[in-house]
Amino acid sequence: MKKNISQGDNVLLYLNPRRTYLVKMEKGKSLHTHRGYVQYDSLIGKPYGTCITSNTGTEFIALAPALRDYIFKAQRNTQILYPKDIALIVMFSGIGPGSKVVEAGTGAGALTTALAYYVRPRGKVYSYEIRQEFIQNAEKNLEKANLAKYVTIKNGDVTVAIDETNVDAVILDLATPWLVVPQACSALKGGGAIVSFSPTIDQVIKMVEALKANGFADVQTIECLMRGMQIELGKTRPETLMTAHTGYITFARKSAGK
Amino acid sequence: MKKNISQGDNVLLYLNPRRTYLVKMEKGKSLHTHRGYVQYDSLIGKPYGTCITSNTGTEFIALAPALRDYIFKAQRNTQILYPKDIALIVMFSGIGPGSKVVEAGTGAGALTTALAYYVRPRGKVYSYEIRQEFIQNAEKNLEKANLAKYVTIKNGDVTVAIDETNVDAVILDLATPWLVVPQACSALKGGGAIVSFSPTIDQVIKMVEALKANGFADVQTIECLMRGMQIELGKTRPETLMTAHTGYITFARKSAGK
Amino acid sequence: MKKNISQGDNVLLYLNPRRTYLVKMEKGKSLHTHRGYVQYDSLIGKPYGTCITSNTGTEFIALAPALRDYIFKAQRNTQILYPKDIALIVMFSGIGPGSKVVEAGTGAGALTTALAYYVRPRGKVYSYEIRQEFIQNAEKNLEKANLAKYVTIKNGDVTVAIDETNVDAVILDLATPWLVVPQACSALKGGGAIVSFSPTIDQVIKMVEALKANGFADVQTIECLMRGMQIELGKTRPETLMTAHTGYITFARKSAGK
Amino acid sequence: MKKNISQGDNVLLYLNPRRTYLVKMEKGKSLHTHRGYVQYDSLIGKPYGTCITSNTGTEFIALAPALRDYIFKAQRNTQILYPKDIALIVMFSGIGPGSKVVEAGTGAGALTTALAYYVRPRGKVYSYEIRQEFIQNAEKNLEKANLAKYVTIKNGDVTVAIDETNVDAVILDLATPWLVVPQACSALKGGGAIVSFSPTIDQVIKMVEALKANGFADVQTIECLMRGMQIELGKTRPETLMTAHTGYITFARKSAGK
Repeated sequence: MKKNISQGDNVLLYLNPRRTYLVKMEKGKSLHTHRGYVQYDSLIGKPYGTCITSNTGTEFIALAPALRDYIFKAQRNTQILYPKDIALIVMFSGIGPGSKVVEAGTGAGALTTALAYYVRPRGKVYSYEIRQEFIQNAEKNLEKANLAKYVTIKNGDVTVAIDETNVDAVILDLATPWLVVPQACSALKGGGAIVSFSPTIDQVIKMVEALKANGFADVQTIECLMRGMQIELGKTRPETLMTAHTGYITFARKSAGK
Repeated sequence: MKKNISQGDNVLLYLNPRRTYLVKMEKGKSLHTHRGYVQYDSLIGKPYGTCITSNTGTEFIALAPALRDYIFKAQRNTQILYPKDIALIVMFSGIGPGSKVVEAGTGAGALTTALAYYVRPRGKVYSYEIRQEFIQNAEKNLEKANLAKYVTIKNGDVTVAIDETNVDAVILDLATPWLVVPQACSALKGGGAIVSFSPTIDQVIKMVEALKANGFADVQTIECLMRGMQIELGKTRPETLMTAHTGYITFARKSAGK
Repeated sequence: MKKNISQGDNVLLYLNPRRTYLVKMEKGKSLHTHRGYVQYDSLIGKPYGTCITSNTGTEFIALAPALRDYIFKAQRNTQILYPKDIALIVMFSGIGPGSKVVEAGTGAGALTTALAYYVRPRGKVYSYEIRQEFIQNAEKNLEKANLAKYVTIKNGDVTVAIDETNVDAVILDLATPWLVVPQACSALKGGGAIVSFSPTIDQVIKMVEALKANGFADVQTIECLMRGMQIELGKTRPETLMTAHTGYITFARKSAGK
Repeated sequence: MKKNISQGDNVLLYLNPRRTYLVKMEKGKSLHTHRGYVQYDSLIGKPYGTCITSNTGTEFIALAPALRDYIFKAQRNTQILYPKDIALIVMFSGIGPGSKVVEAGTGAGALTTALAYYVRPRGKVYSYEIRQEFIQNAEKNLEKANLAKYVTIKNGDVTVAIDETNVDAVILDLATPWLVVPQACSALKGGGAIVSFSPTIDQVIKMVEALKANGFADVQTIECLMRGMQIELGKTRPETLMTAHTGYITFARKSAGK
């Protein structure tokens, strides 16, 4: 992370937890909100974290966007994964700097963005998307996050073939992940990780059966629930309305035979 | 991840989800279990993922250890964080390749291991531990995971001082995190992340007050619950006994003032 | 429950889980909805459970209202307790037929309705409400559910005095329940139950301290989370949005001393 | 509830939340525990709630057993339902004083005990159990709770026939509840409630399909999670280990046709 804001930087203008704006610093331009406008010229050169006051007197904080900001602010043309689920997918798959990863489908590129972020600087993400019309949007989201160079998006169908071999992890966010298990098995190196995200229990049952039939080991399925807490002396409590179920995450590791 | 097992590699010998063994490949040596012994000579040179049969006929799978294996297999002399919580700490702090991170306390080095894993190859973790006797064990766990070079462990008290400046994130797993907030504020670059893990709600309330008093923005507290699922046609159900509460995670970002 | 619908009965006209209408059967009258109107004359004399078609061809089912229908359909001028919480309060307090119960505050009478339902036919609920303007509405809700005769609503302040003695249970849904503990202790018979519902953890901590200071035994606090499931072959999953936290329930039993 | 302890009464001797003893007061007898013995003669005639000291100086509190004590202390030869689930079954079925209820199977009689408790004094529970050897134990548990007269236990198979008609509710805790849906439909009065408890999602899917195929309305499935809280100033937190999933509860109401 850099210390000072430069021309061309993406900046997250923070008003409150529900109102944040991901904008690109361009000389002479400004952000217009219901709380007044903020001129970028008065931010360029200042350190990240600076408070700036709009013309109507409201304070905004100029933050360097974090990974989850890029995820939440991605231009969406389809349902995207939640950070809580992305976090567990990354942790349980073992994806990190240098990993070679296959992902399908690309969708809006939210998970792709996270994968690219963690495999830097020498790893690579191969992301498959069958719907041509989604690819351009995903690429734009990756470029915005400065992560496009770690990703190759392919217009292809992983239920037919995965081109890559010897990959560290295959990550699936598809309606029928069980159809991809044999292809994933060929693509993965021995001991490599397969991870699948599915909203329904019916999908999970089919996926787990396919994984076992293809000799995968250490098959586990989990659900992650994240509760927000309201912390304030005298009013501390969990939040009432909660995004509870988003999907189940299934993990397994490739067994290479005897 | 490498393709074949070599002399000197760490290998995870997998029997079932509850029985795994993290061992170092040494010629002439073997693993002895209640299900017979496995000779390492018969694994060296084979691809990861290979199935090997013990002398009594039980199958083990030889896997490349993933990050969470190193975490779970760490030698513990104190309570360690769960992977579910580590995953969210990493995601919400924005820590990734290249990050400069301060952590306290080191404890058994479980979280340190994860932080070092993600900041590779050019980032750095500065981990503070006040109890001298914990440091050697944590160093051993980091060496086992080949991550020691990304970490500097310091025998020091972060409630007194943090030496580093311009850091991307400060991660606290301490009994009294609120005492560290001013030091963390000095150490962080503008917009940098502070994250604190605490088991009790009383700690969270004090921490959130200290963060607000020190001008931190975007203060949020969450609890992560991970449910294991038993997936088997005709017997599918969430697990009965669940590790529910481990702790609350509080996040905030440094605001640098006007 | 009666078998056939009579003039004067309350009937629940069920369209779907989100659209139900609690109406009183009166000759010559009808229910008007966005899906057409239903004439009561065509229902009177028919068995409960009958399907009836509106003038526009939509089917409604005429059900005998259950306790939870009266609770959900209560005229509300304040927040009411959820059936999940009422269910646990009733179970853990031991309230049942014949119980003598003190409740405060009455509010809209939702919990009062449930308590009255279970203490029938020989028990009694004494419900205290400090806000005079709430009492009439609560009485109307109780009359609608035919349960008014099991309840005495009193315009009084339980932090000052509870008139009854030798009661089986005291149930509190108040902002400051800890102020009522000494009065509840005097009102309860030895071994009697006190139950308190509070949204915030701060209230719970004060209540538990007051209970222990007043010698109550078996003090327990729980939170009840109810997840709705979407059950449909191929689409089975927990619901996404969930009413998670409503409040904590604290139970204790009076210890009478040596 | 009575005020004073008499010869022949059941008394709950409370040591702490994990150690309670349900005993019958008999002159000249005593309870022997690892914390010394308590003589019943010194309790008879005293008020409920009395503290009594064992010969070794440990205090016990003599409480009138509540419904949940009878449930927890039931002699078990099979898995019993948890109070949290019983509470929701009772609330959502609308069972209360005067209800006519069919239950299957009886098992150890834990749910039977609760149903009998709530239908008093004029309702009735018909409880079917196919395994003759379970019936005697269940009857003993009901007698201990003084509720036997509200229950008729039948050695019969509800998948073959339910003898009763015009019942208010049918409650099923069986491995194959879907086989009982037609019989339940015949037994229920129009608008009557059917409730089924099942541990697995596979059972729930079959049950919901059977309910819809038999014309039941308002079909809902829920899961109840109860979190225990540790409340202590400075140490307040949810409990770590939690009994999470016990089973799903499915509710529906009989529609009587047009």
